[in-house]
Amino acid sequence: MSQYSGYHGDSLEFLEKNQIAVGDFVDILSDKVYSGIIMPRFEHNDDKHIVIKLKNGYNIGLEIEKVERIEKSIVPDKIIKRNESVNQNKELPNILLLSTGGTIASKIDYRTGAVTPILTAEELNSSVPELSKIANIDAKVLFSEYSENIMPKHWLEIAETIEKYSKSEYSGIIIAHGTDTMHYTSAYLSFSLAGFPIPIALVGSQRSSDRASSDAALNLIGAAKFLTECKTNGIYVVMHQDENDKNIACHIGTRVRKNHTSKRGAFQTVGDKPAFLVQNDKIFTNSKTSFFTTKKFDPKIKLNEKVALVKYYPGYEPSMLKNMIDSGYKAVIFEGTGLGHIGENMYSVVKMAHEKGIFMGMTSQCIDGRVRMTVYESGRDLLDLGIIPLENMIPEVALVKSMWATGNTENSGAIKEIMLDKIASEFSV
Amino acid sequence: MSQYSGYHGDSLEFLEKNQIAVGDFVDILSDKVYSGIIMPRFEHNDDKHIVIKLKNGYNIGLEIEKVERIEKSIVPDKIIKRNESVNQNKELPNILLLSTGGTIASKIDYRTGAVTPILTAEELNSSVPELSKIANIDAKVLFSEYSENIMPKHWLEIAETIEKYSKSEYSGIIIAHGTDTMHYTSAYLSFSLAGFPIPIALVGSQRSSDRASSDAALNLIGAAKFLTECKTNGIYVVMHQDENDKNIACHIGTRVRKNHTSKRGAFQTVGDKPAFLVQNDKIFTNSKTSFFTTKKFDPKIKLNEKVALVKYYPGYEPSMLKNMIDSGYKAVIFEGTGLGHIGENMYSVVKMAHEKGIFMGMTSQCIDGRVRMTVYESGRDLLDLGIIPLENMIPEVALVKSMWATGNTENSGAIKEIMLDKIASEFSV
Repeated sequence: MSQYSGYHGDSLEFLEKNQIAVGDFVDILSDKVYSGIIMPRFEHNDDKHIVIKLKNGYNIGLEIEKVERIEKSIVPDKIIKRNESVNQNKELPNILLLSTGGTIASKIDYRTGAVTPILTAEELNSSVPELSKIANIDAKVLFSEYSENIMPKHWLEIAETIEKYSKSEYSGIIIAHGTDTMHYTSAYLSFSLAGFPIPIALVGSQRSSDRASSDAALNLIGAAKFLTECKTNGIYVVMHQDENDKNIACHIGTRVRKNHTSKRGAFQTVGDKPAFLVQNDKIFTNSKTSFFTTKKFDPKIKLNEKVALVKYYPGYEPSMLKNMIDSGYKAVIFEGTGLGHIGENMYSVVKMAHEKGIFMGMTSQCIDGRVRMTVYESGRDLLDLGIIPLENMIPEVALVKSMWATGNTENSGAIKEIMLDKIASEFSV
Repeated sequence: MSQYSGYHGDSLEFLEKNQIAVGDFVDILSDKVYSGIIMPRFEHNDDKHIVIKLKNGYNIGLEIEKVERIEKSIVPDKIIKRNESVNQNKELPNILLLSTGGTIASKIDYRTGAVTPILTAEELNSSVPELSKIANIDAKVLFSEYSENIMPKHWLEIAETIEKYSKSEYSGIIIAHGTDTMHYTSAYLSFSLAGFPIPIALVGSQRSSDRASSDAALNLIGAAKFLTECKTNGIYVVMHQDENDKNIACHIGTRVRKNHTSKRGAFQTVGDKPAFLVQNDKIFTNSKTSFFTTKKFDPKIKLNEKVALVKYYPGYEPSMLKNMIDSGYKAVIFEGTGLGHIGENMYSVVKMAHEKGIFMGMTSQCIDGRVRMTVYESGRDLLDLGIIPLENMIPEVALVKSMWATGNTENSGAIKEIMLDKIASEFSV
């Protein structure tokens, strides 16, 4: 959502002047002191008020003219709190729920038909009372962004937060996340948090939680069951497997794609069944190998954004790649055709990129299947030009991995080695 | 394949000097006059000879030192000839087979394990004797390119060739084509040859025709049955539906993708069953509507290559779009996330592109499902910025359509109208 969602005129100016955005935790001095979160406003509202959600859950409007001081509160770990609406059960395992935004943390605005954020993780948690029977949930809002606005810097923030919980009381961690780019985030966490000891489930929903057809509650419940019952680790995307509410799939976070714009069962493991399937109270395991190659938790939370994914097509202009060379790109992942090809007209600029030490990896726009560059002359030409075939890595995952690899080293030999080293189930051999 | 596949040293220099490439029809004056096609050579062969395939089918090596003159022959329509190995049957329908290259027109080199072209359409035809029981086949080589090297200029050449046969004796046309970019070519033909009266089948193979597991013969036979028995028109991709040799699928040429790098059933109709299914001697029809909206054949064989497909991802640098604006691009198709989103950080450059009159269309990298930009604030923002949602058009097809639309008009209103006008089953409503 926009940083100032729904604000305009005076109230927008007021927020901008004070460098406060929607979602910020603030302390306000007015007729008395208020603490809470800046809420978005509906379009067409007046520009004289700001709305904050108080800690008791109520939203109030404050007249900006009467505000003497507004400042961001330090967001302490104390905002992680157990669901207060239910008694804690010491017999139950504990789960940490981190909210980043997205439909799962949203509700529909029945006036506009549009979806707006609810923002607090507590609300998300208390909206699914069944969770309290599975685990004690500690909830924390990291930020509140729809997933098309989740950028690599957000991946870093999520990873840095999670890193702290490698030795915690939690059985697992749920990340509530918008679905659009969930599989990019899961890939980043898979590489940067390799070996993380407890399982992590990214959970989203395709329909907001106040709609009858919402998948939010069932996805959350499925994730909680998976995290507390499966003695495993790794990063998973946990969503409806299909339109059947009984099947919740746990996909390997480096092998999953959103393959439908709107269906609840939009996510699919590429070329395989989901690693785990939660059906009512049973969990079925399809996964045959460990998620991480390493057993040791060795976080490397770095990245470099000067990396591009190039989807090749007939008529793709080689000068676009030339621009990337000139702009200092460190890696290019090709989404080639078929077994991993791009046209001959690309050869001279590919050669140039190779000479500049830019890592070039090949994946396929077929999505499923393995690249094999030795079958056709074109493939062999590309190998000679220094392009590295990336097995059956999904293009989006190869992109994220190359951001991570080039963030960790500038040495081109080391980058190649990292790209071909299986770290988090990102390809099969 | 490379223009000089297998040639090196003196023989390469000889060909280059005479501007002759592999696949060219040539007349050679040496000890006598030879006419034929320049064949590729195997790697590691000597550099003193060139090899040509004579009209009688034999390959001979000619010592370059002894060649007095070599020049390209004019390739006349007379190279279209009926399969001479079989008697023509006047009771049977006629099919035109145009060869453009690809695996289907290739055989494996058992020494290197690599695939090399066989080049002539006659060979392709006569390698599948069953075809002669279905139709009289006239064969013609248009060119010989693996499909990663098929460029928009080749689409024009194919369309211009086919255009001439709108009033012919043929029941249908087969285009033998590499599989990698077959669906881009089929999309271009669908728009540029809208209303073409007889059906056209693009046929490829995932395994070359001399391998036991080859799908070449069955795909050709399936296509021939489809073209001669179905009273329909339109542009189809005809390939194995799955690994079962009995099921040959005929996919609508604007709704199909190559979704696996190597499986024989790599092609799939997105979000639906194939339009037709050939099972042994039966043809099953799933298609419920006409392929073309128009009944009148009104070819528009133009295109403009200053069009780009932008696959959006977290970290996509807005300056890449800025480069396209500066380079005079006329249209940009976004492969957005989910229902059709790109990050807020793109807004300012999107606004700039809109102000320059660049057409911007939105599709989804989910591939399946419809874009819907009114659900979330981000989508509505993008609509306000002038991005046009393209229903459930496949990104690759939207790209090709925008090349075609901007080739036919420079008027931005007209481009938008063409993009949203259903012409060849490219989206459903």
